[in-house]
Amino acid sequence: MQEINVALIGYNFMGKAHSHAFENVPFFFDHGVKPVKKVIVGRTEHLVKQAAERFGWEEFATDWRDVIHREDIHVIDIATPTSSHIEIALEAAKAGKHIFCEKPLAMDALEAHRMFEAAEQAGIVHMLGHNYRRVPAIGLAKKLIQDGRLGDIHHFRGVYLQDWLLDPNFPASWKLNKKVAGSGPHGDLNAHIVDLARYLVGEIDKVVGMEKTFVDKRPKVKVDDQLSSKLTAKGEMTEYEAVTVDDTTAFLAKFKNGAVGTFEATRFAGGRKNHERIEINGSKGSLVFDFERMNELEFWSNEDDLEVQGFRRIMVTEDVHPYINAWWPPGHIIGYQNTFVNEFADFFKAIKDKQQVYPNFYDGVMNNKVLDAVTKSIQSLTWENV
Amino acid sequence: MQEINVALIGYNFMGKAHSHAFENVPFFFDHGVKPVKKVIVGRTEHLVKQAAERFGWEEFATDWRDVIHREDIHVIDIATPTSSHIEIALEAAKAGKHIFCEKPLAMDALEAHRMFEAAEQAGIVHMLGHNYRRVPAIGLAKKLIQDGRLGDIHHFRGVYLQDWLLDPNFPASWKLNKKVAGSGPHGDLNAHIVDLARYLVGEIDKVVGMEKTFVDKRPKVKVDDQLSSKLTAKGEMTEYEAVTVDDTTAFLAKFKNGAVGTFEATRFAGGRKNHERIEINGSKGSLVFDFERMNELEFWSNEDDLEVQGFRRIMVTEDVHPYINAWWPPGHIIGYQNTFVNEFADFFKAIKDKQQVYPNFYDGVMNNKVLDAVTKSIQSLTWENV
Amino acid sequence: MQEINVALIGYNFMGKAHSHAFENVPFFFDHGVKPVKKVIVGRTEHLVKQAAERFGWEEFATDWRDVIHREDIHVIDIATPTSSHIEIALEAAKAGKHIFCEKPLAMDALEAHRMFEAAEQAGIVHMLGHNYRRVPAIGLAKKLIQDGRLGDIHHFRGVYLQDWLLDPNFPASWKLNKKVAGSGPHGDLNAHIVDLARYLVGEIDKVVGMEKTFVDKRPKVKVDDQLSSKLTAKGEMTEYEAVTVDDTTAFLAKFKNGAVGTFEATRFAGGRKNHERIEINGSKGSLVFDFERMNELEFWSNEDDLEVQGFRRIMVTEDVHPYINAWWPPGHIIGYQNTFVNEFADFFKAIKDKQQVYPNFYDGVMNNKVLDAVTKSIQSLTWENV
Amino acid sequence: MQEINVALIGYNFMGKAHSHAFENVPFFFDHGVKPVKKVIVGRTEHLVKQAAERFGWEEFATDWRDVIHREDIHVIDIATPTSSHIEIALEAAKAGKHIFCEKPLAMDALEAHRMFEAAEQAGIVHMLGHNYRRVPAIGLAKKLIQDGRLGDIHHFRGVYLQDWLLDPNFPASWKLNKKVAGSGPHGDLNAHIVDLARYLVGEIDKVVGMEKTFVDKRPKVKVDDQLSSKLTAKGEMTEYEAVTVDDTTAFLAKFKNGAVGTFEATRFAGGRKNHERIEINGSKGSLVFDFERMNELEFWSNEDDLEVQGFRRIMVTEDVHPYINAWWPPGHIIGYQNTFVNEFADFFKAIKDKQQVYPNFYDGVMNNKVLDAVTKSIQSLTWENV
Repeated sequence: MQEINVALIGYNFMGKAHSHAFENVPFFFDHGVKPVKKVIVGRTEHLVKQAAERFGWEEFATDWRDVIHREDIHVIDIATPTSSHIEIALEAAKAGKHIFCEKPLAMDALEAHRMFEAAEQAGIVHMLGHNYRRVPAIGLAKKLIQDGRLGDIHHFRGVYLQDWLLDPNFPASWKLNKKVAGSGPHGDLNAHIVDLARYLVGEIDKVVGMEKTFVDKRPKVKVDDQLSSKLTAKGEMTEYEAVTVDDTTAFLAKFKNGAVGTFEATRFAGGRKNHERIEINGSKGSLVFDFERMNELEFWSNEDDLEVQGFRRIMVTEDVHPYINAWWPPGHIIGYQNTFVNEFADFFKAIKDKQQVYPNFYDGVMNNKVLDAVTKSIQSLTWENV
Repeated sequence: MQEINVALIGYNFMGKAHSHAFENVPFFFDHGVKPVKKVIVGRTEHLVKQAAERFGWEEFATDWRDVIHREDIHVIDIATPTSSHIEIALEAAKAGKHIFCEKPLAMDALEAHRMFEAAEQAGIVHMLGHNYRRVPAIGLAKKLIQDGRLGDIHHFRGVYLQDWLLDPNFPASWKLNKKVAGSGPHGDLNAHIVDLARYLVGEIDKVVGMEKTFVDKRPKVKVDDQLSSKLTAKGEMTEYEAVTVDDTTAFLAKFKNGAVGTFEATRFAGGRKNHERIEINGSKGSLVFDFERMNELEFWSNEDDLEVQGFRRIMVTEDVHPYINAWWPPGHIIGYQNTFVNEFADFFKAIKDKQQVYPNFYDGVMNNKVLDAVTKSIQSLTWENV
Repeated sequence: MQEINVALIGYNFMGKAHSHAFENVPFFFDHGVKPVKKVIVGRTEHLVKQAAERFGWEEFATDWRDVIHREDIHVIDIATPTSSHIEIALEAAKAGKHIFCEKPLAMDALEAHRMFEAAEQAGIVHMLGHNYRRVPAIGLAKKLIQDGRLGDIHHFRGVYLQDWLLDPNFPASWKLNKKVAGSGPHGDLNAHIVDLARYLVGEIDKVVGMEKTFVDKRPKVKVDDQLSSKLTAKGEMTEYEAVTVDDTTAFLAKFKNGAVGTFEATRFAGGRKNHERIEINGSKGSLVFDFERMNELEFWSNEDDLEVQGFRRIMVTEDVHPYINAWWPPGHIIGYQNTFVNEFADFFKAIKDKQQVYPNFYDGVMNNKVLDAVTKSIQSLTWENV
Repeated sequence: MQEINVALIGYNFMGKAHSHAFENVPFFFDHGVKPVKKVIVGRTEHLVKQAAERFGWEEFATDWRDVIHREDIHVIDIATPTSSHIEIALEAAKAGKHIFCEKPLAMDALEAHRMFEAAEQAGIVHMLGHNYRRVPAIGLAKKLIQDGRLGDIHHFRGVYLQDWLLDPNFPASWKLNKKVAGSGPHGDLNAHIVDLARYLVGEIDKVVGMEKTFVDKRPKVKVDDQLSSKLTAKGEMTEYEAVTVDDTTAFLAKFKNGAVGTFEATRFAGGRKNHERIEINGSKGSLVFDFERMNELEFWSNEDDLEVQGFRRIMVTEDVHPYINAWWPPGHIIGYQNTFVNEFADFFKAIKDKQQVYPNFYDGVMNNKVLDAVTKSIQSLTWENV
């Protein structure tokens, strides 16, 4: 059992998800690797200390620069706000550490490309945190498309709908600050559906988009540390802070292979909690996936007898389905956290086997290119090439 | 175009549904027959007169005895409370008229058998109003089973859930009076699922049941005519009337072919408006049907590749599906009333072609036998043979 | 009972649907009007004769010009291909006849505006055939929005997906010929969702769109009469005909009230038969409607207690819901054809009461303006004002 | 952080689920307790050794008698076939160890009662493994009922459908051997729905049931150890073994509070993988739960305005819902394994706080009484008191 030592930068939502995955990888996967939770890093000492204890890290630190060159660290895991990704990643690559980075990879494609080049030159394993590729139902979707069950793809239809900003008194946070987050649901949510579109359909050629900010200022919350502002925290709200990112961004897309697509992300769709829904229509079949029911995949095939054609609800919990062997018997569903376990199992296996793993920083570059082109089109009011 | 003259006894809910069907049969079906709405019969003159005008009947009458032997009448359609079925039917058979009778056929199997024998001896066409057999999705279910797509049937699971008695102040009506209605949801709703069970699975051998009346008296409504008490009518409620029928009846069943079944009917399932739901599991496949989504049939087959097995939602609106040629293009759903049009199209075609049609009074006998055995088992507290 | 005589131009799909509605209006609605099926018009004599017999018309004719000025005709019902609407409508208005016209109203907004002006000057009742406004669930949606249950509208999300062109050997027809149909699913299907968007959300300000034709030629079918080419007809296919309309059109929209919207129509979405689905998100609630389950409306409200918030599936079959009093008890669903009965009940009532009815030709103008702006944006590659 | 040392007897499906929970409890729950995976026990040395390594146990042993009295063991966790529960539990109680036992508690109520008495006399904490009570949606259901949102309960409707025995060549295993398992889906699956019925509705008074074995012999599999026969194992199948348990058992029930219920468990419902579905109807509201979509609860209330009444789909992933604070943000679903983490968090907290926890062995007694009465009724052919 090869032990691989990790330093995790960031300790909030993704910090928790990653810590859990590190603990569970060897429990479920027989890959002969064991991630070791060496050191967790955050700027506010009492909070990162608390996280270290709760999530089972050996040490904590308050400055990632103190950690990144340590000899006993093999992997740098970046789970910080987007604006800080590049600096950490370039330093980690310089130090020759393998890197896992949360999405979106960078503030723009230029940054992303620098990160990709640095990683490639350093010869390290680099992975981008699009965990939804590791949902078994998405793995099955990929297989069905590769097997030709959908024929030529005509349509991609993706929405990612949430509602946590619907209340105008929901407080400001770094996620609503363009300098830190880069964008709103565009980088946060469209990034996910763009990744699935690229994975399942292919590269996007041209886009035209629109965005809207419905609530342009929000109550300021007094917090110890910007990083620690919990999404649901409600403090004294005497001041307002400008919202400098989009509340929703939608765009039309033309794929290089001739398919057409629609994309939309919002934080203002009341009743939609984490409704990432994609539908793909091809010349022979169709697929539908909804992340709120992530253990299911709907599939329609024109190869069925006409009288029994219909969208079938596949419970993607059979031994024959991707990753499920590691988990439970048929019909016993897995949850959000399992996608990270699947993802990190592949990541650490790649490190052990000295192989590439996907999605990686190249995918981050391509993803950022799509996001950037959309943003540009919103300014230029016309179609932009990716 | 052969004209066939009808006398309809009863003018409430079923009276409306049948009248509509008579008007629409030749519009949608090319069977060369045209039902003529000759005379509608009811005890309360001003109400039956109103119905005659609204529903387009040439005449009305207040005593069915005056009508049944008229030479210009070819069909007697019985849409009255259950207790009156036998008297009307025996007289109609004596007069040599073809008979359509609403379900349940009779108060018990003995009565039903007398009606069946009379009809057979008279050599008339007789049909029982189980219109749900004419839902295209049920027709498709029948075909899939006949084609062997389900293999040997192991399970039948049927419920018929409504909620219109949930409010204890909902008024008394003939439907809650055992002498007139025979029983509550047992004869009203279980009769429907028993018919589908017999149609799709086969004859039932043994049963054991239970019943319950949750609200044993209800406000009395002052009405002109017992037959005319509308379900939603709310008048002066100074007095109470005993509820003498079941509010719910459930039973276990063993089929002659080895399958087992569960049945349940109730008027106390809050939120269920007309939720007739059946599920059938066989050695090779399964089916699910819900009357509130009557244009759909769910089908699972173990002949699909394992990785894409799942219940498929078939929109039963394709040309290849039963009856749909008469209606609209794919995806344009039909409604409750269309099942009566389908049903009467078959009935009048059978008269024209001098053939039998199903379900008929024999099915009524067998259906009543099941209902009777359940009732007997509720008294005896043990299993009863059908 | 006021009799109103109708001349129907066109006898295919819509001809059947309208004829059925005329027959059923007085059966279900107490408006004191009775549409009389006077004369049906079509170019191919043996086919229109057949339709007249089947659908119960007193007469048939092969040239609408012979009919339009007859004194005994009160209503001209236009159910022909789009390109012929204007000529018939202008003549009908000149003759002072009330006009019902199928959608889209015209080939473009200019034509539509001429029709609207002619109708207004003639002082007739004019109505546009957007029957989906008469689905009870859509009526309920309108009411909930008017009552403020959704708050300010942020998002409209509409798709209209069908799959009848998925097979590249499906034959050519007038619907695929730009000169006759004007456009493909854009005018056929987007017109429907644009109407619902205008009805439920408000006027659209700016749009940008894309279109695609996946299969650019199709087998030619030899037919007697262009109008009579049934969608499913498959004849000798020795020659090909160019497809000159879109197979899919999608667009982004900005509404005047600040809402944003996405629209998409296609005939290439495998497994989607008549999947018109709209979702509306406001500051207080959300709504979802799917035409394949047209008796249901999903509704989410932030006024529910947080612990029980969720999209509720409303069976729109209660007495309190629009139009349902005319039909059946709760849970007994209505079908596609009933929407036409509801629609024509309103139309004939408006004629009797000498009042306006909606949607009318003004709505046709506004609808065509949206469709035109999308088409223009596809050429200009930029946003266009409506 | 109080460490509590566990000995786990059994290492298959439940062994894996429990081991995972022990590892994850302190990660997600702040209860100040840390279960320590001390020793895992199984009869086949090489298999239990493998399990110990994979699941992170400090030691393994092949005889539970060697372990149960060890001073460093605080908790005995029984995850063996049913027939062995009593012997292990009595010994553990004698040793003064806290006991967690998988369901069903015992082969019959008599055994269960002896276990309950022994546990009570020993003054230990005892818990029964009905993990479904710890599904947040079930916790919410309990709360809604306790808050009076359903009013008086009229109906309980429970099915637990699986299909893993549908193939007649699926091999024999201890689960199909009455001497080891006690019964088939009756004890395995009905036990679960009986627990939920008792938890949510109340005690059952009388029952009548039926059972059926569709396939009465199955291929024998040569295995090293009976306990290790994996469900999907297919070895040489030269011999057959009799199936001595039920393939399906259904029953009717009358509750002490006047509600009525139907129950059914089967392993022959094709397409149903782990379909535990319950529906509860009361005088004011209704609930529906399906374990395959365990993060959702459907709720209908007659306190909603009539026009918007409908079953609402609650995503039970909000902070206000039971247990969810420990997990992820809204809309990020949890999986099967999380129910065990919730369950063991409560168990170890109870040990630390020296309090009782539910369901415990008393619930096991009551549950077994219901199962026994059903079995008795199948013999006696009449209703039996619980």
